[in-house]
Amino acid sequence: MSSHVDAKDLPTELSPSPADDQPAETSDETTPTEKGYRQPEIDVVALTGVLDGKYAEVRALVRDNLVAHAAILEDAETMTREDFRDRVRDVVVEMAGTGQTGMGFPAEYGGGADIGASVAAFETLAMGDLSVLVKVGVQFGLFGGAILQLGTKPHHDAYLEDLITGRLMGCFAMTETGHGSNVQALGTVATYDAATQEFVITTSDDSARKDYIGNAARHAASAVVFAQLDIEGEGRGVHAFVVPIRVDGEPAPGVRIEDCGIKLGLGGVDNGRLWFDGVRVPRGSLLNRFADVTPEGRYESSIDNPNRRFFTMLGTLVQGRVCVGGAGINASKVALAIAIKYAVRRRQFEATDPPMEDLLLDYGMHQRRLFPLLARTYALHFAQEVVASQLHDVLSGTTTEEHARRELESRAAGTKALGTWHATRTIQECREACGGAGYLSINRFAALKADTDVFTTFEGDNHVLLQLVAKGLLTDYSSDFSDLDQFGMVRFVAGLAVGTVLEKTAVHKLVERIKDVLPGGDTWDQEAGLFDPDYQLAMLRFREEHMLGGVARRLKRGIDNNMNPGEVFSLVQDHVIAAARAHVERLVLEAFVAKVGTLDDNDNKVALNLLCDLFALTTIEADRAWFMEHGRLTTQRSKAISREINRLCRKVRPLAVDLVDAFGVPEEMLRSPELMSWGSGSAVE
Amino acid sequence: MSSHVDAKDLPTELSPSPADDQPAETSDETTPTEKGYRQPEIDVVALTGVLDGKYAEVRALVRDNLVAHAAILEDAETMTREDFRDRVRDVVVEMAGTGQTGMGFPAEYGGGADIGASVAAFETLAMGDLSVLVKVGVQFGLFGGAILQLGTKPHHDAYLEDLITGRLMGCFAMTETGHGSNVQALGTVATYDAATQEFVITTSDDSARKDYIGNAARHAASAVVFAQLDIEGEGRGVHAFVVPIRVDGEPAPGVRIEDCGIKLGLGGVDNGRLWFDGVRVPRGSLLNRFADVTPEGRYESSIDNPNRRFFTMLGTLVQGRVCVGGAGINASKVALAIAIKYAVRRRQFEATDPPMEDLLLDYGMHQRRLFPLLARTYALHFAQEVVASQLHDVLSGTTTEEHARRELESRAAGTKALGTWHATRTIQECREACGGAGYLSINRFAALKADTDVFTTFEGDNHVLLQLVAKGLLTDYSSDFSDLDQFGMVRFVAGLAVGTVLEKTAVHKLVERIKDVLPGGDTWDQEAGLFDPDYQLAMLRFREEHMLGGVARRLKRGIDNNMNPGEVFSLVQDHVIAAARAHVERLVLEAFVAKVGTLDDNDNKVALNLLCDLFALTTIEADRAWFMEHGRLTTQRSKAISREINRLCRKVRPLAVDLVDAFGVPEEMLRSPELMSWGSGSAVE
Repeated sequence: MSSHVDAKDLPTELSPSPADDQPAETSDETTPTEKGYRQPEIDVVALTGVLDGKYAEVRALVRDNLVAHAAILEDAETMTREDFRDRVRDVVVEMAGTGQTGMGFPAEYGGGADIGASVAAFETLAMGDLSVLVKVGVQFGLFGGAILQLGTKPHHDAYLEDLITGRLMGCFAMTETGHGSNVQALGTVATYDAATQEFVITTSDDSARKDYIGNAARHAASAVVFAQLDIEGEGRGVHAFVVPIRVDGEPAPGVRIEDCGIKLGLGGVDNGRLWFDGVRVPRGSLLNRFADVTPEGRYESSIDNPNRRFFTMLGTLVQGRVCVGGAGINASKVALAIAIKYAVRRRQFEATDPPMEDLLLDYGMHQRRLFPLLARTYALHFAQEVVASQLHDVLSGTTTEEHARRELESRAAGTKALGTWHATRTIQECREACGGAGYLSINRFAALKADTDVFTTFEGDNHVLLQLVAKGLLTDYSSDFSDLDQFGMVRFVAGLAVGTVLEKTAVHKLVERIKDVLPGGDTWDQEAGLFDPDYQLAMLRFREEHMLGGVARRLKRGIDNNMNPGEVFSLVQDHVIAAARAHVERLVLEAFVAKVGTLDDNDNKVALNLLCDLFALTTIEADRAWFMEHGRLTTQRSKAISREINRLCRKVRPLAVDLVDAFGVPEEMLRSPELMSWGSGSAVE
Repeated sequence: MSSHVDAKDLPTELSPSPADDQPAETSDETTPTEKGYRQPEIDVVALTGVLDGKYAEVRALVRDNLVAHAAILEDAETMTREDFRDRVRDVVVEMAGTGQTGMGFPAEYGGGADIGASVAAFETLAMGDLSVLVKVGVQFGLFGGAILQLGTKPHHDAYLEDLITGRLMGCFAMTETGHGSNVQALGTVATYDAATQEFVITTSDDSARKDYIGNAARHAASAVVFAQLDIEGEGRGVHAFVVPIRVDGEPAPGVRIEDCGIKLGLGGVDNGRLWFDGVRVPRGSLLNRFADVTPEGRYESSIDNPNRRFFTMLGTLVQGRVCVGGAGINASKVALAIAIKYAVRRRQFEATDPPMEDLLLDYGMHQRRLFPLLARTYALHFAQEVVASQLHDVLSGTTTEEHARRELESRAAGTKALGTWHATRTIQECREACGGAGYLSINRFAALKADTDVFTTFEGDNHVLLQLVAKGLLTDYSSDFSDLDQFGMVRFVAGLAVGTVLEKTAVHKLVERIKDVLPGGDTWDQEAGLFDPDYQLAMLRFREEHMLGGVARRLKRGIDNNMNPGEVFSLVQDHVIAAARAHVERLVLEAFVAKVGTLDDNDNKVALNLLCDLFALTTIEADRAWFMEHGRLTTQRSKAISREINRLCRKVRPLAVDLVDAFGVPEEMLRSPELMSWGSGSAVE
């Protein structure tokens, strides 16, 4: 591989001459390490191994399945909507036959008994058609997951084997038109009738119709329905029931089903609306792991506090969030692979030496557009590995601690938010980086954009999820955590001293240690090297703690000033979201740094270190105003960071194709026949 | 109209307590003007009048036409591709019959003889189906515009009347697969054959096929083809020819036509590819306004310099860019209208006082997401009004100065880039702000997202356009401007003293004047009020000049260090783009401030001033790191700006619905029956 810009003698960055800027800058002009820099040669297969991790075999199976069904990418464009929905269902069932989609279920029902494997399989599936992915998520993650996690043995015996094979198709009827993220306020009611020992499910009004329910419009025979349990006039909160919604393909008596109509993307998923008009289901339909109703109508639960019970049930959503976050990250890989491979084939305007256009990827701006996204994709990949592993431990019972479960929920919410926003941003940037060609459906971006778009708002709206993260941090995932709505959280935090809030956060101790690991004492931020991971981590940890403290102080002050919690929350909301984001970014960097630390010293490690630096420094750069405002970045150092990022981009340039090849996106999933081959005769790679 | 947050007693911003931050901040806690603030009442009709400006009648005609053909929004989702393409063609022809699409053509051919009116009509059309918009742009703007601007009377006589009515459908065959933004390197050849007095048009190789050509795949009978003129072996550069591509609906002999296939959006536009295999057209087919070939084969041109001739011809693209920028801005209005109207109907979680969910728009974060975009939409609208008016003057011959034409080209390029990126960003944010409902096609975002996506890269890739802007600034739109490619520009700038470059820029004199209009001399940036438009303008002007100077210094230094221009350009490219963006943002703010200055003192003016402040301060805030790095913003003042923005958002809150109503988007164009009506019974507005 060669290129116009040879990393061996990288030109110095073209800063304005010192006469015009602060003289201090000149000392930063040349980084001494530059001299000894040797361009690493990436071992692509080995790097794919690092990325695939312990589930390499699972991912290989999914890649094979993706290739076997590659034609579906074109079918998505050419088939009628109904035909394509059936086609997607068929592919899902065929994939189920290979064991790919059942890995998270117990072995006795035909599953793979490995939660981590099921997440790895799902993530990898995101490299292909995303209707297939979402249909898999609905059937096995949401519907199957609810039966598994909220149900007990009779439910498992009754449903799991059939749903794992796809013989029983189901849906997850939680969201209502009038209640998106506010599940606790659902309007559907399940009234217990002791005389017949049945629950009577009713849609109370039109705002309580179930909406956007995947699999409902066409294929599902059964639904897990979330409804307010009512026993003799007493409300017991939201519970889940298994309700047959179709009999022989027709809506069951009392069930009305409507198609949600055409959507922005995911045309192969049959989203529908459901209304229940006094639908009767036997007492055993209640998924009764956490609460039950006796035949005579007595309510029993192992969890006394209703709020906590509710949040425990809702905790089953955690797997879906982990999966969607991973899907966003993997869809980003497809977009980056296409855009970067295109950019080493496409020439733009005339070149410097020979009378030939320069390769797009040799342009500084093009590198600046794509490489930070590439680095962040790697970072999020490794962060996702951590959260998937924690999910595995919690759901497999390896970790039973309540605190760990809450931390997992928070981490899953945060990674989902950052991973899916990253997908939206990355796919858009890559589309634009391919110009008009990026607009043709054959080049994949059309489907990637349209299908991933909903990721940012489903399985929990990203902003709502980040509020959940902040709530966890501010209350130390306390046992009261689950009982607190956001206004309860305002009151709770306002009742504590700010110092008390901070001391309980995980980041607090990490910040305390800054002085031990970095030179400079109070001036650690000016004396440490920019490429020192301890410095980079210290910056993100400082930001997180300071932002959390700011939120706590603002909440306290609002309450002290006799404002009501709603007003206070609204005024502080942007700080709450920012603090949560800072927390998650800190976790992401920690995951990346930790991962690189486990690797043997070789060229792949050198390359990953470049990406890790690029991720860390672009993350600091993106919020450099905040760091300056809070006294942790001088203007000189801020400018130095921007320069170093440009320099890092030039180092990544010759490695870029290998770095996207290592994602292991099957060629068939890239499509883009012309983008991939265009001008390859004359290109230098 | 009422709301939970009453602007009359806006709560003070909840800053962290002074003990933890710089004490200086406390003085900013309460803005004195707050006390006297009276919430304005917007006269929506009058505000629409301000926005519609002198072309109110034209816009009213287009709105009527949009409503008359409103069914096409649904047809876009339900018809087959071929049927929908024909449907779009039919609507375009029907609209043409009302005079709507021919306003830019001379009256003697049935046109309206008013360029400004044609731009206003096009912009307004962007509130509806965008396939119709783009088809109109191709037929009347690109094809018709080329005949009008590059042709002479015989061409006008032969084609204009038929193309204005839509009887003759045409396409604009410039872009080639291998050459997107680099028109000068096109591969299609037109060889003059003196024996027959014909041009022979040939696609030299597959990279020279014409690509993405709107109207080509199905409807166009004729094409304006851009090709390298070759006379007896001598290349004369790119010229345009009228070439029949279909005869009785079938491809003309020697012409091969292929469909580009399914695209991300704009399904109603028949984009195609064209190959020419020795296609012969008579000598008169050359659009010969700027250059001609005599029967015996002598080349004649009123413009000696070939480069300059080329760029003069390319200058005809300016109208298309003005139109696309305006379309992006108007599509943004549709998205904002839906998202804001939804947010005053949708409740989220439990409310503060009554046991009812708060309205989405009462959330601080939601305001922060939408209102700066609303303010920027207003700002861009007024900036667009300026560029459209300049276009009118230049194309109507009111302004003949060469310098003015070049300034127009630069301004058109810059406004197009910012307006279309704004559309992408705004539509995405509004989609997410409507949650899952935003994903349903009936709620408009699907089409808005998919159809506008290509705006950022067609009619000139936005990054390439910003480079054009920077080139103009750095060379003072000199007469040599058009002769310079980007590397020529590098050499040119490097050959001048930095001071010389800056002195010639328009912004230079404006910066010089800062001290005259603001208090504080060298510390103007610390002593002026944040809401003083002179302060806001001074900040953006300072940034622009400083960035331009930085680019000039960097270019100079690179050349002085014996780097080749390509390398230098690549290293400086991100600064080039940043400087251009700073320039365009300055123009946008100037346009907004100037517009507000022309209005009578009334509540509408008060409201627009709020938006203007919001635009100015969010623009500064977005680049506050740069201002701090360059000594023009203290950390205290930077934080104060963020607080004032939050406060402005709360003032805009009760006005928000009126502000989007004033856009005058016909109700039928919003669709979204449920988003618009949902819960209206219980909502307070």
